[in-house]
Amino acid sequence: MSTIQKNVEAASESYSSTFTKGDLALPPAKKYLVLTCMDARIDPASAFGIELGDAHVIRNAGASAVDAVRSIVISEQLLGTTEIVLVKHTGCGMLTFKNEDAYGIVEKSLGASAAAELKARSLDFLPFPELEQAVKDDVKFLQASKLVPDSVTISGWVYEVETGKTKRIV
Amino acid sequence: MSTIQKNVEAASESYSSTFTKGDLALPPAKKYLVLTCMDARIDPASAFGIELGDAHVIRNAGASAVDAVRSIVISEQLLGTTEIVLVKHTGCGMLTFKNEDAYGIVEKSLGASAAAELKARSLDFLPFPELEQAVKDDVKFLQASKLVPDSVTISGWVYEVETGKTKRIV
Repeated sequence: MSTIQKNVEAASESYSSTFTKGDLALPPAKKYLVLTCMDARIDPASAFGIELGDAHVIRNAGASAVDAVRSIVISEQLLGTTEIVLVKHTGCGMLTFKNEDAYGIVEKSLGASAAAELKARSLDFLPFPELEQAVKDDVKFLQASKLVPDSVTISGWVYEVETGKTKRIV
Repeated sequence: MSTIQKNVEAASESYSSTFTKGDLALPPAKKYLVLTCMDARIDPASAFGIELGDAHVIRNAGASAVDAVRSIVISEQLLGTTEIVLVKHTGCGMLTFKNEDAYGIVEKSLGASAAAELKARSLDFLPFPELEQAVKDDVKFLQASKLVPDSVTISGWVYEVETGKTKRIV
């Protein structure tokens, strides 16, 4: 067992020994979802004030709304959420490369067959060159999507990894 | 401003006032990623023992590995992670419906133009009928993918929303 796997087991032992929230309902109690980045420097529960059971939390590289459509539709249409809090962040890796860079790195590192799998999946890494504009673009994308009804409240934010602050953009 | 937006601002005020981790590096310090569900009843940091800065956390509906490929490739190829901890959970919403059910709900709730957008995106909601089998299937998918090199350690787990325990499956 790896060190990381041992760490999961130790955390489970500790967390479950004082766990008292075994009867929470499946649908989020506060009927909202947070979409943020997978970045290791973000702890959504603490930074954005999410109590256990209150909100869906979707995380992917860059907090991409396009990438999150499947999860968002399930959250809203099947589990009754009516508000989206979208949070991108300073220092995001997605600001640092373009699709062709990533394709080149994969081909060099993993070979031609991996590059072929990338192409077969038509994988767009969805990087973005400017942070606040990307927040606005993603909010616009959600507002324009027929899959997100107009009754859903959407806000866009930037989390500062340097200060721990979350600031509203749109 | 909505109640939920006010809550984000209040959390930001509180969190940033005692924040001391503004100098963490972009790449995860412990070089791993956790892939888990967006479910509101999961707090990955506490339940799986993730310290700020240590791991990427990817979350989507059902902890789907297929849905997470873009983020996983970025995590490994661009940011140097070498281990995947995949955690699905008891009581998952993805166990409760089939694609045709979700398509029907979207069409009834949002109308024909939304259903057309679903079809245009060829959206597969990726539900699964059996929990432990789904963990095994997703681990196999990652092991088989040319985009995940054999050197990456992969484990599959189930988190129990009733007990707070995380158990290794594969």
